[in-house]
Amino acid sequence: MNNFTFYNPTKIIFGKGELKQLDDLVPKESRVLVLYGGGSVKKFGTLDIVLNELKKSKRELFEFGGIEPNPKFETLMKAIEICRKEKIDFLLAVGGGSVMDGTKFISLAVSASDYFGREKDLVYSGRGVSLKSALPIGTVVTLPATGSEMNSGGVITLGKDKLSFNNILTFPQFSILDPTLTYTLPATQVANGVVDTFVHTIEQYLTYPINATFQDRTSEGILKSMLEIGKKTIDDPTNYDLRANLVWNSTMALNGLIGAGVPQDWSIHILGHELTAIFGIDHAKTLAVILPALWKIRIDKKEEKLAQYAQRVWHITTGTTREKALKAIQKTEEFFQSLGITTKLSDYGVTENQLDEVIEGLKRHKFTAISETSDLTPDIAKEIYLKSL
Amino acid sequence: MNNFTFYNPTKIIFGKGELKQLDDLVPKESRVLVLYGGGSVKKFGTLDIVLNELKKSKRELFEFGGIEPNPKFETLMKAIEICRKEKIDFLLAVGGGSVMDGTKFISLAVSASDYFGREKDLVYSGRGVSLKSALPIGTVVTLPATGSEMNSGGVITLGKDKLSFNNILTFPQFSILDPTLTYTLPATQVANGVVDTFVHTIEQYLTYPINATFQDRTSEGILKSMLEIGKKTIDDPTNYDLRANLVWNSTMALNGLIGAGVPQDWSIHILGHELTAIFGIDHAKTLAVILPALWKIRIDKKEEKLAQYAQRVWHITTGTTREKALKAIQKTEEFFQSLGITTKLSDYGVTENQLDEVIEGLKRHKFTAISETSDLTPDIAKEIYLKSL
Repeated sequence: MNNFTFYNPTKIIFGKGELKQLDDLVPKESRVLVLYGGGSVKKFGTLDIVLNELKKSKRELFEFGGIEPNPKFETLMKAIEICRKEKIDFLLAVGGGSVMDGTKFISLAVSASDYFGREKDLVYSGRGVSLKSALPIGTVVTLPATGSEMNSGGVITLGKDKLSFNNILTFPQFSILDPTLTYTLPATQVANGVVDTFVHTIEQYLTYPINATFQDRTSEGILKSMLEIGKKTIDDPTNYDLRANLVWNSTMALNGLIGAGVPQDWSIHILGHELTAIFGIDHAKTLAVILPALWKIRIDKKEEKLAQYAQRVWHITTGTTREKALKAIQKTEEFFQSLGITTKLSDYGVTENQLDEVIEGLKRHKFTAISETSDLTPDIAKEIYLKSL
Repeated sequence: MNNFTFYNPTKIIFGKGELKQLDDLVPKESRVLVLYGGGSVKKFGTLDIVLNELKKSKRELFEFGGIEPNPKFETLMKAIEICRKEKIDFLLAVGGGSVMDGTKFISLAVSASDYFGREKDLVYSGRGVSLKSALPIGTVVTLPATGSEMNSGGVITLGKDKLSFNNILTFPQFSILDPTLTYTLPATQVANGVVDTFVHTIEQYLTYPINATFQDRTSEGILKSMLEIGKKTIDDPTNYDLRANLVWNSTMALNGLIGAGVPQDWSIHILGHELTAIFGIDHAKTLAVILPALWKIRIDKKEEKLAQYAQRVWHITTGTTREKALKAIQKTEEFFQSLGITTKLSDYGVTENQLDEVIEGLKRHKFTAISETSDLTPDIAKEIYLKSL
């Protein structure tokens, strides 16, 4: 096991009906900006409940809607202006990963006076920047997928660039996870959440053996959970237990727990982000396309852990290590397909001659030596994209 | 899944050589009381390293040694006097569960001015008491077992009573877990740590099915880890990976993670505490005695989860539910015995006619309706103790 630091101070309030705790969780007499996305939280009444809870104490309430999927820097800058003008002192994100990620960026940028006028520099450089403070955040989660409700990272969009940041100051103070708030999600978004949870786990698990039993077993548990409940919660969206298990597993898949002390890959995400930035394909759907292709190209490096995955998650007990690995790749593709998600990039109309632009994106973002062993070059990435077609 | 709150702000610093972070973790210019147990941290040099690290900044250092296993209220009161007299503002526990639990009690009592002169009332009533603050705590863990390094609870001894407390203010600010610091432990203490970790997990897992997939799978992972590495790390104490896995699994077994949103039992601990208080049997060794007896007496209530445990942890796939359950109980007993720990209370010289005093203790402590379904009465406890002989 590698040395590590684990720290996660977010308070989780989990379960149906727990929005009633909002009035106790958000500071009294604060100036609160409530942030949300495209309107479904309005349509299905979640926003009204949130605002009514907040009105139980003397607070000044402001709203900022319209944070889009893969939130744009320009959109977030508008919220940052509001925060500065209205002297907002608490941010409440109501939505999924995009709203939460965007809110985290806002929280950093509002407070980072050194960066006024050049907020773009907080992305990337934001990873290491030693800011003193950020606006406190709470979240109400309406889409289980990204784990953003219990971590300190985010991804935002700058033009055609999808870029990440991470800062210890952006852990939400609290997150309310009420599975019933996700009942109204379209099936395709639930399927995305299942795949996102699955691949978050894979990025931290499927590298090379390092003999970390808690991390391996817990990752395998999340993967098995997704196999067990993924399809069912898409087909039966108001079954509380199924949905609660999706919500809690998705939080656990990216809160630092399973990645502590083990090598991590994240190539699938990095290669996928380029596809979202250029072709607008849903984040999770890019992961389903890249994962099998990457495993096929990188099988020599990942074979041993793939065989462990085959055995423990898929109960594939016969065959050579290579045969087990190949069988597990096939099974994983079939799993994604069973959720209604294709594993072929060409199904999105992408053709071979468009891949040069994708590779240029990787290079521009300096992703020239990625993976758990820092040896996945743009040339290998090209092979992977070709394989994914 | 039940509704729950999960909150755990302790920062974990894990790995060999990490004591060097102490100077950054403990506030500069503070007045620090370093607390430890019977002297092994002195003998093996851990205390010297700790003190040298702390001396790197301008701090006033005080020491308090001699915190015994199952720490006594009277001992802890002496440390509380020192804290008040010397205006200590940071407590650093260097040791195992007893030192950490004792330090937590000290941290509460020093600050609780309402309780001056009646600090005993902080036990039990400490669960609900609304204190404003407690002295901040850091820990350096030298014995993997209790999970105290990453939770807010503790157990101390008052006369012949072993009593617990829990207060959100007593989460350590940080805990340093360097597996190499545990290499010098006697084999019997390592075996105790394996059993303690195992039974902490069982208390939160082996109740009745509630369909919480993350919690179940993670618990099963910890149990499988203990089967895999338990005996090996006793026999091969300086194997880093084995010991690191024991340390990390033991922390994860009692930090709130696997118990969130599921029913919990804790009868094994409660029945065991009485045996430690009266006969002085090591805590973990009481658990190994009570667990099989309790399962045999309570098999009707626990049969379904026992069969799940049999199947997923022991790979027992044939037979009826009852047969699987019984087989799993037998396997668990054999596992404890393989670690050199008996599962028979009579091996400690305890006889049937001494059990009335034990039952009286349970009643005095108001443990008259315990377990996940609050129906384990003193009469049933008597049956369990008899079965354990």
